[in-house]
Formats: sequence, structure tokens, C-alpha cells
Amino acid sequence: MKVVIIGAVACGTRAACRLKRLRPDAEIIMIDKDDFISYGACLLPYYLTGDIFNIDEIRTTSFRAIRDAEFFKNCKGVITLTKTLAEEIDRQKKVVKVKYLENNKTEEIPYDKLVLATGAVPKVPLFPGVDLEGVFTLSNAYNAKKIREKLEEGKVENVVIIGAGFIGLEILEAFTEAWGVSVTVLEYFPQVLPRLIDPFLSRIVENNLRKKGIKLILNARIKEIVGENRKVKGVKTEDNFYPADLIILATGVRPNNELAKKAGLLVSPFTGGIVVNERLQTSDPDIYAGGDCIEVIHILTGKKILMPQGSLANKQGRIIATNIAGGYARFKGTVGSFILKCYDMSIGGCGLSYGVACSEGFDAMYAINVQHERAHIFSYGGSYYSLIFDKKTNKVLGFQSIGPFTDGTLARLHAIASILPYKPSVEDLVELELAYSPPFNTALDPINITAHIAENLIYGRFKPIEWDEVLNRLKNEDPNLLVIDVRTPEEFRPMKDKYPNWINVPYNEIRSKIKTFPKDKDLVIVCSLGARSYEVSRIFYHEGYERVYIPMGGVSLVSAWGEDIK
Amino acid sequence: MKVVIIGAVACGTRAACRLKRLRPDAEIIMIDKDDFISYGACLLPYYLTGDIFNIDEIRTTSFRAIRDAEFFKNCKGVITLTKTLAEEIDRQKKVVKVKYLENNKTEEIPYDKLVLATGAVPKVPLFPGVDLEGVFTLSNAYNAKKIREKLEEGKVENVVIIGAGFIGLEILEAFTEAWGVSVTVLEYFPQVLPRLIDPFLSRIVENNLRKKGIKLILNARIKEIVGENRKVKGVKTEDNFYPADLIILATGVRPNNELAKKAGLLVSPFTGGIVVNERLQTSDPDIYAGGDCIEVIHILTGKKILMPQGSLANKQGRIIATNIAGGYARFKGTVGSFILKCYDMSIGGCGLSYGVACSEGFDAMYAINVQHERAHIFSYGGSYYSLIFDKKTNKVLGFQSIGPFTDGTLARLHAIASILPYKPSVEDLVELELAYSPPFNTALDPINITAHIAENLIYGRFKPIEWDEVLNRLKNEDPNLLVIDVRTPEEFRPMKDKYPNWINVPYNEIRSKIKTFPKDKDLVIVCSLGARSYEVSRIFYHEGYERVYIPMGGVSLVSAWGEDIK
Repeated sequence: MKVVIIGAVACGTRAACRLKRLRPDAEIIMIDKDDFISYGACLLPYYLTGDIFNIDEIRTTSFRAIRDAEFFKNCKGVITLTKTLAEEIDRQKKVVKVKYLENNKTEEIPYDKLVLATGAVPKVPLFPGVDLEGVFTLSNAYNAKKIREKLEEGKVENVVIIGAGFIGLEILEAFTEAWGVSVTVLEYFPQVLPRLIDPFLSRIVENNLRKKGIKLILNARIKEIVGENRKVKGVKTEDNFYPADLIILATGVRPNNELAKKAGLLVSPFTGGIVVNERLQTSDPDIYAGGDCIEVIHILTGKKILMPQGSLANKQGRIIATNIAGGYARFKGTVGSFILKCYDMSIGGCGLSYGVACSEGFDAMYAINVQHERAHIFSYGGSYYSLIFDKKTNKVLGFQSIGPFTDGTLARLHAIASILPYKPSVEDLVELELAYSPPFNTALDPINITAHIAENLIYGRFKPIEWDEVLNRLKNEDPNLLVIDVRTPEEFRPMKDKYPNWINVPYNEIRSKIKTFPKDKDLVIVCSLGARSYEVSRIFYHEGYERVYIPMGGVSLVSAWGEDIK
Repeated sequence: MKVVIIGAVACGTRAACRLKRLRPDAEIIMIDKDDFISYGACLLPYYLTGDIFNIDEIRTTSFRAIRDAEFFKNCKGVITLTKTLAEEIDRQKKVVKVKYLENNKTEEIPYDKLVLATGAVPKVPLFPGVDLEGVFTLSNAYNAKKIREKLEEGKVENVVIIGAGFIGLEILEAFTEAWGVSVTVLEYFPQVLPRLIDPFLSRIVENNLRKKGIKLILNARIKEIVGENRKVKGVKTEDNFYPADLIILATGVRPNNELAKKAGLLVSPFTGGIVVNERLQTSDPDIYAGGDCIEVIHILTGKKILMPQGSLANKQGRIIATNIAGGYARFKGTVGSFILKCYDMSIGGCGLSYGVACSEGFDAMYAINVQHERAHIFSYGGSYYSLIFDKKTNKVLGFQSIGPFTDGTLARLHAIASILPYKPSVEDLVELELAYSPPFNTALDPINITAHIAENLIYGRFKPIEWDEVLNRLKNEDPNLLVIDVRTPEEFRPMKDKYPNWINVPYNEIRSKIKTFPKDKDLVIVCSLGARSYEVSRIFYHEGYERVYIPMGGVSLVSAWGEDIK
């Protein structure tokens, strides 16, 4: 059996090596236009920081071998043609036409089965100046090397990063902490990590970035990248100019589908991804495709989306190998799990964000929980959780979390991502039996607590109110609003005399004073995290008060946004 | 509605407070024989270390309020009778007969619904001397205070801890690190954490404990605790004497079922736990029970077991409140999740251990995976995973992990514990889509990798061999054994010339030398972690070699046991 694999990074190499293990008799040829192959692209941000000193470390095994063509030949039994461009697939003849880039010679390589692992290419925005010297994408090791060389030369003072998505946020630390460079981030959307997390959490990230000295411009409307003598000078937006001697385009990627299109394989006009079935066969059953170049099904919406993630590429490579070897394996879809480190924050999610869930037509609702993720003596700081669920069915739609740089966020994501394919309800999360010990979590895990809040919302046990509405009405001195702060006098001190309609009635005095509050005003109960507010609201409702509301997450949430409320 | 709750620690207080929130009209009385209530018993080990300075911190809210009877009255609207002993339940009259311990007066307290949250009592072993001065259980705050007082007095030189279970291991750090006391651990079983984890992982813990200076005696057969003038002097075993001025009995707990038995409620003769239905009603439907005093169903075996965990007690308290309030909530059973910190290790598991699975009649098998839990630049050290599954059905039976003191172990446990109720197969774990980023894990999460190993076992893709067998045959210079170490010459160096039948053929030379190995010997392929061994074994099998075996976990595992193999 002759198997040709085009692309030798994540999916391609995984498919090649596993197939060779399953079918040592298979003749496997990997083709890549580059000669820097089989590398961990997700490690590039840490090459920029210098944590990874030599670029070769991102293609080194745990036993210190460099994964180059020689390695694949000797260790894996896989032939690798590097600096070789796959120009065309002749599906009738079952050959791949390649050009050897070093001598421009061409050849036809026959295959019985073909694997497209062509990956993604950076989306380059349309505004003028993207081709100027000093404008980079972080799309491969060569660019990363060039960026770090510029930093090492000490000639970079101002960096502009265009795009505050996954990559944009991951690389910030390299510039500000490792190299002391001033950073501006320009984001088109009104929030960082658009579509991935919702504003009630993204505002925490934004506030932290600003505290780190990042100049963060949301809703940025870029007109052009300005240069002088072909060198970048800065970025002009509709209303400002941001000087820069280095610009990183972090505006996402699109599937590298050229070869597939040219071969007449089905490519989605909507996503641009190569269309595959569950066994990862393209519209030609002898041709498989996996990794960033394909579209996949989102398990919660049933719709096809792009999900360019190294972890999925590896999974898909394995599935392709199993199937080519004569086994049976399926890629059933994605639940959209992601996590990233941004400074001392871990940020992650899975399923749908509230915004996406609504735009997908779900009657969605969300619960917010703020708490320390473990016993105070072991705590590294507060964590923020959001659970998105369907009001009609109570099914879980998504989950997001921001916490300190521990694996606490990962732990909660792991739990939710694992059960999402089983379409759990909020009640199922209440029931999750998550291992407990004070160094690791609270007696009921943050997931359980977040699900409790969701359940209390579902059963109408309290009425939520948006913090933004509370803040607006406070600032406008709305006479119909009374904020009752049930924290202790010590906790309340920063708010003392700040707003006339923000009063302090400590938690332990509420029961005895319950008859003294006005019934003709909207009572907003606040505390530090929300637990006391909820308890107090139950007393109010029982006493016949109806206009009683709780802004979820308490003062801790709005304070983490950077609002002047403590 | 009058509700009486007996026991005011975890389950009892959770039930009381939630019930009051759901039914503010309910009249709730909590009864406890102690006046130190509503405390986090799991925090006691950290009171011993001094991380928790004042014992009151284990019963303090996040907003610094002490949870005493006054707190429950003012803040929660719950009456609490402390230092009050519930002596008898008259189910006909629906009253609880109590005795006020401070004045010995008695009273009958009527109830509509009664909750038994009587917890557990320490199992005190039967050998002589357990009543001597200086012998303690860590069963409550008073004992913890007395133990710390003795440590603070500086008069403790030698501690003997009897029992190397959960509590036994959690408190070690307090004695050796915080107080510099010499510690001997006596364990009846041939391993630490018996039944919880299997020897292939417990030996790692044992080796680490010995490295920390703990004198760890397994298979200990205690004859008596020896004293002088009523004060403890040491422990006599069948073959030794261990001096001690302080002895901690950490031999587990049993359900406190006296009151239930006396009231004629059904109590299991097998477990000693109070028998409850899924709604946590006892054999008298007006009497509920939860927490350490009940037996629960193990979801994987369907059998009733004891699972005294603070997290479950809290869950059960909540369920009881929902049901008494007129709602509908069920406790469907336990998957046996646990985690603990022991020095710089995190140790956890869920489901069944291999040993328990076999004794429960499963045709069980296990896969072992050793790896760094994240990219090397972020790693805190190696992690060890074991997946237990059923050979016939491929269903997952259990999972165990030991890793550095991060939340990495928690993360993997969270994933597995969450799906165990759905009875996943090994293939389902292969498919788990776990969020990836280099600071947090590897492109395929350790769970995925462990499941790959399990899958390779299921499909017979390699033949496992026990390390113990390899070690024995090596030591006996078995002429039918040839260990082929496929690591690099640098990695192999510590093993050079150590055993005549342990040779080095680096991974990258195997393919070219594959025809040169003997076919009439058992070839045992070893590498550092197991990945290279697996790959190499596939080449051997393809070449017609049949007697080719892999000891899972590679040299890293056996080295972590403390064996002289590096």
C-alpha cells in the first residue's frame, strides 16, 4: 500500500507514524514545502519569550531528537520529502504532481491512499501596508525567528498587535515582560476573545491587560499600515495613529484548501474547509483530510465550523491512520474546547458562548459564579465561571472560566468538555462528583456551585439584574433604585458615602430589619461574591418584596472589570 | 413545618441552610453534642502544619464570620442547640429526646421531618494501649488542638502514625516539615492507600515517603501500644518496637449509627451505614439521613459502600433540603472520586482500583502511562496515570493518577469522574476533546494517551510484561531474557554493564538491525516512558518476532519505585 501525505506538521506526521505502526508494510511518503517540519506551532509564543531558547526545541522529542526527514526515515520508517511542493493531484491516475523547490524538478508520486494535511494559512487583512517590512504573522517558525531577531537587536520600541484573539493574547507577555517593549493591541470587535468568551468575562481580561500596561483599543477601525522607505512606521485607524516598528497580524487563519479545490474535491463555500465525513474521507474516498484544513461538526449546533487546534489535528491524524489501516475510527465533532495562558491568567471555555448561543437561536441564559477555586490558605486568587444553558431544556450549552495561572481552569474545562457530548442538563452538573481536598478545590467544586446558581435561576429563586444596568442607574441617581450592600461594615468601607442610594445593612442584621425596607423601589442586593445576596433575597421574597434583584458575581465581578466599585 | 436536624457539621448545616432558603417558613432546629460546629474537618491537617493558625479559621466564612449558633440564628434563621445530645428518637410521637449536656436536663423536641447527619466515628483498633495518654485520632477539632499543643510544647520527638490511608498520608507533612518530628508509619496492608490505588502507583508514593525520611513499615502487625505511667512509650509489633511520644490512629472511620439503630431504622449489617433510598429517606420516610453515617451505591458495581467524604456530605445535605422542601432530588450514587496532597505529590483516583475491580469479579486490565503533564518548559515533573478497564466490554472501570502538586491530577480526575456515570468505553476516552495549550498539557491530553495505550492493549498491539517479572529474571540472570534498551546511549549510561542481558540498541538503529536479534528469547523492550518501546515492538512483531514484551511506564516507572534502574 502506497500512502502519500501532504503536510508534515501535526495531523500529517501523526497519521504517518501511526499508520506505519499499524501497517509496517505500508510505504508512506510525507511531502512538505518546508524543511522545518513536525513542530509544535503552539510553542511559538514561548520561543518569543525566550523560554524556548533555540527554535529547534519546538521540533525536538522528549529524548532530544530533532524531528527532521532523517528522523522520520530512521526512527519512523517514513520517507519525507521536504522543500517539496505538492502542485496538483491527478485523481484519475492517482498521482500527486510535486515540484522539488531546490531544483525546480517535477515528478509524479503515485498513491493508493492520499492524506491532505495542508493546514491553515494566516488571514491577511485587506488594508494597505500589510506587505511592509516589519509586518509579520506568527504563522511559522521562520517568522517567529525573524521577530525574535528584531527583538534581540533591541531596535523594537513599539509593537502593534492586530487582533485580540487566541494568538494575540498569548504573545503579549513575550513583548512586555521578556523584552520590555511597549504594546498596543487593536481589536475590531468591542471585546477581546470575541465569540470565545462573553463580555462579562472578557472585561476582566481587558482590565488586567490595561493594568499590565497594554494599550488596548477595542472597536478599532484600521485604515492602513503606514510605512516609510518600505519600513513600517505605525497603524492609522479612523481616529488615531499608533506608532510601531513591529506589527503582528493576529487576525486568524483560514483553511489551506487550494490543492483540494484544484483537485475538484468538495470544499465548503461557507467555511472554506475541506468537506469530510466522520471517517475523515473527502468527497474522494481514497483521499482523507484532517487538521486545520477541514471543517468539522460542532456537536452542540450540528453545524459545520472551523476549529484549527493542534489537539484536534493530532486526533484526526490518528483517526485517518486507523481508517487507512483498515480499522474503523470516527471524528464525531468538536465541543470547541480551548484554553490559553495570558500573563498570570488562565482563560478557557468549551461549548458555546452566550453570544454565540443566542445567535444560533438558542433561548440561552447564563449563570456567573465568582469564588476562590480552593481553600484560602492554598489560593492563588479568585476565579470566574460562567455556565450557559438553554432555558427550555435546561441543557448545558457552554462553560467559560478565568482564573489564576494554575490548572484550576483546565480542571473545570476537562469536566465539562468530557460530558458535553452526552448533552448534560444543569442538574447533571449539580450531581457531578468531583474529587475534593482543600488544596485543590472547595467541598462543592466550583462547577457544582455554578450549576446551583443556574438551577436557582431556572427555578426562579432569584431575579438577576445586569451590573451595567445597576451602574447606569447608580450614576444617574435613579430614585427608584436602592442598592442594599449586605457585606460587613469593613467590607463596605470603600463604598461608604459614594452613592446616596447604596446603603449598608450587614447580612446578620437583615432578618431583624426585614420589614423596614421600601416596597416601592427596586432593591438590588449586593455582597462580595453573591452567596449572601442570594440568601438575603430569599428572605425578601418570603416577606413579600417582589422588586428584589441580584447582579451575579457580586462586587468582586464588577471590581475585576475595573469599575470603581470595591 | 418543624424540621429537626441531628448533627451540625457538613450535611446537617447544608441541609438546614438550604431548606431555610427554599422554605423560609420552616422552623428548623439543629442539634449537636459539640459546640464547635460547621467546620471543615478536611482542613485539620493544615491546622497541624500551622498553615491555619487559629482553629476558628476552619469554621469561618469567606467574610470572616464564625459559624457558631449565633451565626446560624441571625444569618441563617436556624436554631442551633449545641452541647445537646440526641439520645433517642420516638418515631410514634415524632419527637427527639435530647439531653442538654451543660445541665443534664432533658427535653422532647417535636419534628415533622427529621434529618440524621450524625457523621462517622473513628475506628479504634482492638490492640491494647489505645487508651493511653498520647494516643489520638484526628476525628475532631479538639483532638487537633491537643495534638498541636503537644507539638508546640516541643516535647514530641517521635510520632507513630497507624494507618497509611487518606488521613495518614495527609498529615505526614505537618510532622516532618512543620515540626521536624521523626515519623514512623505502620500500615497493616502491603501498600499505602490500600484499595484506593494499585501497587504500581502506590510504590511511587512509598518511595517518595522514604525519601522524605519517613520510616514506612508495610505489613505491620501491631501487638500493642506500650505505655509507662499511663503515657505512651511506643508501639510493639510482631517483630519490632517503635518508640513514640505521640501516636495517631488513622485507621478509618465507621458510620455513627447508634441513634438510627435504637430508633429501629434500617442499618446495613454489612457496611454499618444507615440505609437510605435515592431521595435519602431512611426506612422511615419522615426521617432523612446523609453524610458519613449512610451507605451509598457505587455506580460501577451497584453495591452499597461507605464513602465518607465532605463533598458528598454537602451534596447530600442539599438533596435532603430539596426533598423536604417539596422538590425532587436524588443521590444516584458515588463513583468514588478522591484526591489528596501528600508532600509535593497530588494523588487521586475514581472508579475502581485494579485490585478492587478484580475482586468484584470484573475481567479487568490496566494501562499505565508516564509522561510530563505539560510542555517541558512549564513542567513540574512527571505524572503517572493508570486506566482500569473491562477486557470483555472495554468499559472504563477506574482511573488513578499521581503527579506533582499542581491541579493536573485534579483535571484528569475531573474529566473521568464526570463521565463515569455514563459508563464510557476506552474509545470514548480516546475521543475526549480536552482543551490544549502548552502551559497546561500536551497536544493529546494524558487521558487521551493513556486511553491509546489501553486501546493498543485491547487490540493486542503489544504484549505487556510486569516490571516485577523483568526485575526478577534480570537478577536471576535468566538466559531466556534479553532486555533491549532503545534509549539513546546518553540515557542508557546508568545501565551500562549493569546486567549482562540488558543491552542498548538506540531507537534510530532498530530498523536497520531488526534481523539481528534472537528469536528464541523473550525480548523485553524498554525506553524512558514507553512510547519508543511500543514503536519498536511493532517493528519486531512485523518482522515475525513473537516473544516481544513491554513493561508499561518504561524505566521512569520502575525508577520512581526506587528500584536501582535509571
